[in-house]
Amino acid sequence: MKLVCAQSDLSTNLSLVSRAVPSRPTHPVLANVLLTADEETQQVQLTGFDLSVGIRTSFAARVEEGGEITLPAKILNDIVSRMPEGDIQLEERAVDAESEAPETSIIATLTSTSGSYTVRGMEAADFPALPVIEDSEAKAIYLPAEALIEGLRGCLFASSPDETKQVLTGVHLTLDRDGIEFAATDGHRLAVVETVTNASEDEEEEYEDASEAEELEVTVPARALRELERMIGMRQSPEPVALHLDGGQIVFELGTQRLTSRKLEGMYPNYRMLIPNQFLSEINLERRRLLSALERIAVIADQKNHIVKCTVDRDNQEIYLSVEAQDVGSGREALPADISGDEPKEIAFNVRYLMDILKTMTCAEVTVKLNDMTSPVILTPLSGQKQTFLVMPVQLRA
Amino acid sequence: MKLVCAQSDLSTNLSLVSRAVPSRPTHPVLANVLLTADEETQQVQLTGFDLSVGIRTSFAARVEEGGEITLPAKILNDIVSRMPEGDIQLEERAVDAESEAPETSIIATLTSTSGSYTVRGMEAADFPALPVIEDSEAKAIYLPAEALIEGLRGCLFASSPDETKQVLTGVHLTLDRDGIEFAATDGHRLAVVETVTNASEDEEEEYEDASEAEELEVTVPARALRELERMIGMRQSPEPVALHLDGGQIVFELGTQRLTSRKLEGMYPNYRMLIPNQFLSEINLERRRLLSALERIAVIADQKNHIVKCTVDRDNQEIYLSVEAQDVGSGREALPADISGDEPKEIAFNVRYLMDILKTMTCAEVTVKLNDMTSPVILTPLSGQKQTFLVMPVQLRA
Repeated sequence: MKLVCAQSDLSTNLSLVSRAVPSRPTHPVLANVLLTADEETQQVQLTGFDLSVGIRTSFAARVEEGGEITLPAKILNDIVSRMPEGDIQLEERAVDAESEAPETSIIATLTSTSGSYTVRGMEAADFPALPVIEDSEAKAIYLPAEALIEGLRGCLFASSPDETKQVLTGVHLTLDRDGIEFAATDGHRLAVVETVTNASEDEEEEYEDASEAEELEVTVPARALRELERMIGMRQSPEPVALHLDGGQIVFELGTQRLTSRKLEGMYPNYRMLIPNQFLSEINLERRRLLSALERIAVIADQKNHIVKCTVDRDNQEIYLSVEAQDVGSGREALPADISGDEPKEIAFNVRYLMDILKTMTCAEVTVKLNDMTSPVILTPLSGQKQTFLVMPVQLRA
Repeated sequence: MKLVCAQSDLSTNLSLVSRAVPSRPTHPVLANVLLTADEETQQVQLTGFDLSVGIRTSFAARVEEGGEITLPAKILNDIVSRMPEGDIQLEERAVDAESEAPETSIIATLTSTSGSYTVRGMEAADFPALPVIEDSEAKAIYLPAEALIEGLRGCLFASSPDETKQVLTGVHLTLDRDGIEFAATDGHRLAVVETVTNASEDEEEEYEDASEAEELEVTVPARALRELERMIGMRQSPEPVALHLDGGQIVFELGTQRLTSRKLEGMYPNYRMLIPNQFLSEINLERRRLLSALERIAVIADQKNHIVKCTVDRDNQEIYLSVEAQDVGSGREALPADISGDEPKEIAFNVRYLMDILKTMTCAEVTVKLNDMTSPVILTPLSGQKQTFLVMPVQLRA
């Protein structure tokens, strides 16, 4: 292999695929990136893969001799990112058979204007193959980038970080003609975001084809979707993201970039059932003001059990937040609110759950809907995005 | 105690003194700040103290009732910093004797426009006294803030982080009529900065008095001087810093702020002796270019033993840096240099030590002076500040 490419291209693409390289690889070759140079297309392809999430990207280069090699992701990335701007030559070097054992004889040389580095690699054949979409007949579904960003930003925080929680470690996507619904829950709180997919004229035809199928549902690991969110955020292009589903795999394509992930198998909870239809009270509050008050309350609450108590004073149109941590201290905040319906009893929450939701929202005013002190509470923006957040109250000892 | 002060004053001063509050206090009261309110002067004084370094500061407040109390530094700081701008009322509250044991009955109430918090404190009497200057006859020495900043920035990195190294964990200050000399060494590298103290007209008299004394030497813990560097950096004022020395203590006064520290006892190494007077070769290099090359070399060197080898090519007026890490890779950089004197043999360094020095320097060009491969190497700015850095080469196995 022999090629010349721009330092900025190699560096940007290396840091992108390195996100899928595991920090503690189960097999040595997984600490590497797969580098494939194609003489015909004059393209270099990079792949990082931790057996669950894979990122593949390609960029133009002057490929003098094609080939495949795997190289240590971290060291390669660290060197290339520190190289001066300009051309980098990358060449696979034959190693003197006398001085080196043949099984370790894969070495790449990187040369920039300032200096030259060699890095020891491994056989490309040892690198596990990225899942391919076997059913090539299946059409891609095109998703608008803005809808994906909106849905992921509003949902990802609510998925469970606990690997034993299976489907709850993912975000559940429901696609139909009208749009995509995103949902995530860890059992204590739930986030649902409905987005409208306004396919542009150009994609209209393809999009129509895809959505002629029935409603499509899939649960994707949050870890993969966090990378997707980053990848969309970094792109300049407003192009839609192509989604391929096949067997246990899901593939997102963003121009020359591709993210693959296993799907999460298993029944996703029927979360719609959890959201009450009727409420006894409805409270409108300034979101930022409520968040600031909770941040102060959390200083004390985090010393103990994270519990904040809320009481509602309809006559004064105020809500009160309070916290009590023995041996530490206590706190109380009063906030103006627009309260309608019944005056509910004292209700308690994990302060962190409320803060996560309010930080995710971008609206100026938030509507809180509630029934009694043991029923789920719903937060929605007073206007704007179609977000629904549910949080379970904490039961206080009598 | 009862007082009203500005949220910004209380918050700024709390974060300042909190820097001296230990994260793992040896006694519970050391996790607290001492708060003293003086009705007469209408000042609030805050103190944090870890028994080695102490920070005391004061600010104006409306003190309705004087008193002393200690309150948990972290919780207090976290709450106050999140409070809205405006007035905060702080009041020591008598606790109902029936419900609380008398020994835990110290409680402060903080009230802002948005809410009210109580925090449990401890007796001010339990807080250890900050060292005082007993010899009140001794005049203060006034040090220009810029000279202190210049000296500390150039030296602090070279002190040892290893607490068993005693005096080497500090910076050695030598004061005489002409200026201050700063020195720090961890046994592998040495930094010496000479600063000129241009006492301004206003301070001339006091300064003259102080410097009539002989040369003064003191070794101050790096930890205290890092705080001094921060405190000077945060101040707007160009006022000189007053230095008091007494017994085992050193006190720096910056307006209303005071930093106290124990001195490090013991003989500081005679570092002047270590700096060679004559050199076989002298090399001038672009500092940024050398640093960038070393940063790339370090990617490989850090995988092994941090060693970079340097060779000098006088004919081509170039120096070469190289690194070799078995099973990882190798690297080589060439840099243009202005080389005079003999052409030295290959010489090896810990790449991190060279990088630390080059990062500390601000000059465009650096002069490297050397003798043979086992003698100390000196780095100085080609022009500008009076900095001298010494680094010992690493001995390579033959």
